[in-house]
Amino acid sequence: MNAIDQVKRVNAGEMQVETRVRALLERIDDVDQDIDAWAYLDRDAALAQARALDNGPALPLRGLVFAAKDNIDTHDMPTGYGSRVHHGKMPPRDAACIASLRLKGALLLGKTISTEFAHVFPGATRNPHNKDHTPGGSSSGSAAAVASGMVDMALGTQTTGSVIRPAAYCGTVGYKPTYGEINLSGVLANSPSFDTIGMMTHSVEDIGLLHGHWLQIPDENLIAPAIESLRVGVFRTPYWDDADADAQATLEQAAIDLSRVGASVSDFDDLGALTDLPAISQRVSGFEFAQTMAHERLYALDDLSDDLRDGRMRTGFETGHSQYVADKQQLERARVIMDTAFDNIDVVICLPAPGAAPVGLRRTGSPIFNMPWTSLHAPAITLPLFTADNGLPMGLQICSKRYNDRQLMSSALAIQHSLDNP
Amino acid sequence: MNAIDQVKRVNAGEMQVETRVRALLERIDDVDQDIDAWAYLDRDAALAQARALDNGPALPLRGLVFAAKDNIDTHDMPTGYGSRVHHGKMPPRDAACIASLRLKGALLLGKTISTEFAHVFPGATRNPHNKDHTPGGSSSGSAAAVASGMVDMALGTQTTGSVIRPAAYCGTVGYKPTYGEINLSGVLANSPSFDTIGMMTHSVEDIGLLHGHWLQIPDENLIAPAIESLRVGVFRTPYWDDADADAQATLEQAAIDLSRVGASVSDFDDLGALTDLPAISQRVSGFEFAQTMAHERLYALDDLSDDLRDGRMRTGFETGHSQYVADKQQLERARVIMDTAFDNIDVVICLPAPGAAPVGLRRTGSPIFNMPWTSLHAPAITLPLFTADNGLPMGLQICSKRYNDRQLMSSALAIQHSLDNP
Repeated sequence: MNAIDQVKRVNAGEMQVETRVRALLERIDDVDQDIDAWAYLDRDAALAQARALDNGPALPLRGLVFAAKDNIDTHDMPTGYGSRVHHGKMPPRDAACIASLRLKGALLLGKTISTEFAHVFPGATRNPHNKDHTPGGSSSGSAAAVASGMVDMALGTQTTGSVIRPAAYCGTVGYKPTYGEINLSGVLANSPSFDTIGMMTHSVEDIGLLHGHWLQIPDENLIAPAIESLRVGVFRTPYWDDADADAQATLEQAAIDLSRVGASVSDFDDLGALTDLPAISQRVSGFEFAQTMAHERLYALDDLSDDLRDGRMRTGFETGHSQYVADKQQLERARVIMDTAFDNIDVVICLPAPGAAPVGLRRTGSPIFNMPWTSLHAPAITLPLFTADNGLPMGLQICSKRYNDRQLMSSALAIQHSLDNP
Repeated sequence: MNAIDQVKRVNAGEMQVETRVRALLERIDDVDQDIDAWAYLDRDAALAQARALDNGPALPLRGLVFAAKDNIDTHDMPTGYGSRVHHGKMPPRDAACIASLRLKGALLLGKTISTEFAHVFPGATRNPHNKDHTPGGSSSGSAAAVASGMVDMALGTQTTGSVIRPAAYCGTVGYKPTYGEINLSGVLANSPSFDTIGMMTHSVEDIGLLHGHWLQIPDENLIAPAIESLRVGVFRTPYWDDADADAQATLEQAAIDLSRVGASVSDFDDLGALTDLPAISQRVSGFEFAQTMAHERLYALDDLSDDLRDGRMRTGFETGHSQYVADKQQLERARVIMDTAFDNIDVVICLPAPGAAPVGLRRTGSPIFNMPWTSLHAPAITLPLFTADNGLPMGLQICSKRYNDRQLMSSALAIQHSLDNP
């Protein structure tokens, strides 16, 4: 059930928002005890808001019921940033990404579980497809909530692979925009050079709807181009050997299938844009993370996980300022090189993760296949197109050059149509 | 009295932090009724913190007493963002720029008045040199507090000219770093593509001290280069005609004086980096400001000033997304051009404002001479070197290329020594 369709039904008078919220709350009652997607959920407040919307004027997103990750501020729901340090705290403002959806009639059902400060130390959430497997992170609850049908859409954030990877692990559509595209006011961005808002949805069309409302793009409908007009780069990346054979096979097969239906498929050459990128990305994120956490270093250092304190933050302290500056300058050059690599390619297809969700809840999986796009500020979409041998979902990541988000969405739509109906 | 010297005295046991805080509170009692620099000040809490510091271990910034603009979050002091919408609200975390100074023993005395959301609608603050004149904005209280000796240093933020201009109007040293240099976590950045933390100080050495502590730069002392080795560009900018004859004369004289003491002085060629910049800067800031204010648009639209609602935010709504993206791409190219313009120039000297602080409290003056450096992400320092015919202070703005902040500080020191002792 796409968000777009829910909105149409409500605004056509075919459904009440309250009815929709009650259905979602029932779904939560049915499935959430095995999933634990929620950091905060107030059923009565949600129903009261639904009734207020039903009694109010038509609004362009009335009928959309969404969730937001626990590191995105809300003035009327606690925001804990996935950390016991801030459990139950109430920020003064809604984050811009939330308030702008509420302005248009969308209903925020609750807050979803984040890893600690959107880094790697996990919360309670389990993968809806197998509760012994990680949902991925850091936007764990957002991915699980959408995948299990508890909401129409959920907001997450991505520093490295925190939207695309959990979306792929849980089997939802995921979108990580071009850096800067969606306003971050009210979001605890741990690594400001990389962080973006992202979202999990039931469809690519829903991404287009939300993106269009956020950015006042008048034509909100995506139109898929003819697949024959699409120039697709296949990008195995320098990290190809990190991927399971299972995952590798999905990408190779997607390339064959797209070629068969008429797309121009070729190997993608990154022109060197990815040189040294894993180390650069970790140093820049670490340096910035350590700065961002000054409040917690001062007042609650012992309440941080070892993963954070002795991991990413230590990397940050070991990275000197001159190295950090050199890394940022290298990233700026690499972004321009990556733009150029798309001169004759519309979109790239690649893996969203090294395989399906790993077993175990202590680790959230590797973001290595997401890191290039995040650190180079390029947009990415993952589509839940495949199933691993163990029955867990796997995705196809589709990426484009910076500022090309609408075309990426349209291209993803064309690719989805082609691979769903080969 | 430099902050550096206060810290030395305290850590040498020559002065107690409490003594220093009492002296500053007396100064505030003496002068603040005519200035109104403070959005929040709790004398007893400050004295209690001072005693705790006196009874604690030596810390590298113990003895530094600072203020922070009202749009920079504090968990223990209200943060109102210069708006009646948020008056008295208490955010859950200290901003990183504050917590990291507190971590090292600096004492936050209180919060200083900001214009509304750090845009143009003024608060109550008056210019310490003449209470009928604006202190400038948006960091009005921070500039006035330092200029009148109420604190050793104050934090501000700059979207266009909100640190450098009030520093120049009030007669303090001001510093706007390279974009991204100082972590913005916990700061309400209204235009995320431009906003930086900045500071007002009593000396360039103090900028070096703080910047070094924030960024873990081991060598915290600035060493001024020989003036003879300095290649200085004189930049009248495309906005030269906006400046008073009084202000124009200061720049021309500074160029003559620097040349006389041996600096290599030449006209600066921006290589076209400033083309269309005023319009681009306003559109990008407007587009982002309107997004940032989603919470206030939803819950408190009528409590925003006409200046904001019908000014900058309207510009934002009138700027379409495709124009915004084109502007951001143009800015990215212009930043690289500006780097190149510094190939044979160490620093540029230019005006920090079109003249001394204008009469009247309703407007905070023009940021046109600050806009290029902010929108191109380059660092800037203003030095309080001159006095206008009406007795108000005027500054000299010194700028450099991106990521060149330490060299800019050292060069500013050399220029100050040369012009103070010609």
